[in-house]
Amino acid sequence: MKRGKFITFEGPDGSGKTTVSTAVTELLEKAGYPVRYTREPGGSTIAEEIRDVILDPANTAMDARTEALLYAASRRQHLVEVILPALQNGTHVISDRFVDSSLAYQGCGRHLGIDEVFSINRFAIDEWMPDKTIYLDIDAATGLQRIKGRSFLDRLDQEGLSFHQDVWNGYQQIIRKYADRMIIVDASRPAEEVIAEAFHIVKGLLDEEN
Amino acid sequence: MKRGKFITFEGPDGSGKTTVSTAVTELLEKAGYPVRYTREPGGSTIAEEIRDVILDPANTAMDARTEALLYAASRRQHLVEVILPALQNGTHVISDRFVDSSLAYQGCGRHLGIDEVFSINRFAIDEWMPDKTIYLDIDAATGLQRIKGRSFLDRLDQEGLSFHQDVWNGYQQIIRKYADRMIIVDASRPAEEVIAEAFHIVKGLLDEEN
Repeated sequence: MKRGKFITFEGPDGSGKTTVSTAVTELLEKAGYPVRYTREPGGSTIAEEIRDVILDPANTAMDARTEALLYAASRRQHLVEVILPALQNGTHVISDRFVDSSLAYQGCGRHLGIDEVFSINRFAIDEWMPDKTIYLDIDAATGLQRIKGRSFLDRLDQEGLSFHQDVWNGYQQIIRKYADRMIIVDASRPAEEVIAEAFHIVKGLLDEEN
Repeated sequence: MKRGKFITFEGPDGSGKTTVSTAVTELLEKAGYPVRYTREPGGSTIAEEIRDVILDPANTAMDARTEALLYAASRRQHLVEVILPALQNGTHVISDRFVDSSLAYQGCGRHLGIDEVFSINRFAIDEWMPDKTIYLDIDAATGLQRIKGRSFLDRLDQEGLSFHQDVWNGYQQIIRKYADRMIIVDASRPAEEVIAEAFHIVKGLLDEEN
């Protein structure tokens, strides 16, 4: 059986990843594609326990390297329990965030370095890079403005503009580093326009032979 | 201020690491050395939360790479919160297990490879390798026999002889790889003899100029 394609959605906080990726998944399902939407920790009990440790607002003493290792651990478990079984079953997987988020947030937001953070993620994902990544492009300030109205902000959401600006800079480096994999979509437009463009792109990817 | 020395105790399950390292610490304290005994997670709340996820006997779905990443994360937090503050304060640190345990248990016991597991641990410890390591030498079968009487066995203790034999083989590779750092002590003898020899060795290390 031919394995499914592995597509990720990335972008700064407030870029609309969840809104857009879930809407695209629904449109693909309606169009008859075998597709599964997921986001870390993705319903894996172990990955969820790990995320609880990462995001607990009480854990202010958490070192940046600890945080990066925990994200990699959660990602690994989500990959093994959720993503790989779907792909190997011929289902396409749409993931809301994956490895690039760690490169941007821990590599640049926490100043650990993209290459350093990639080294532990390479151990975690073991060659399972996404086939393609939709990058929802928005500037850091606009993104932050959008999430301000949310009722719950986790430990990372609570970081200030300079952290989110560093994350944004990180994504710019990732776009250059992985130019073949990244597809950039202007996310400053109304949601329905972003969804329509992202759906068109992902449908095209799933229709390709390889 | 001169930083303290960082000494670790390693060896297979049942080699007597905890008995010997705590007794050596007490003897050093009585002899007037500034010394701190610790073992992962070492009283760090975050490291402890991570260990709870690792060792929960219910987490049978845990992937070997997830396990290795979680140990590295717990180690990082223990290093930053407990070990480094002591060393920088001039206190010598005696740690019951450290990085070599992951190389042996996850690298060899779980067959991930020593170099692969070292790569994520290098990220975690960031050059803070132990100054010297006391290896308590015992064969896998004798060690397992000794722990059989324990009332609680965690998820790793519950593994069979073949896992523990692989761990033992891992330690043999580590002894060769880090020959300058490892000091081997025959742990098949009565505890008081092992403690006396280990105390003599560690005291000598703390008395050295560098």
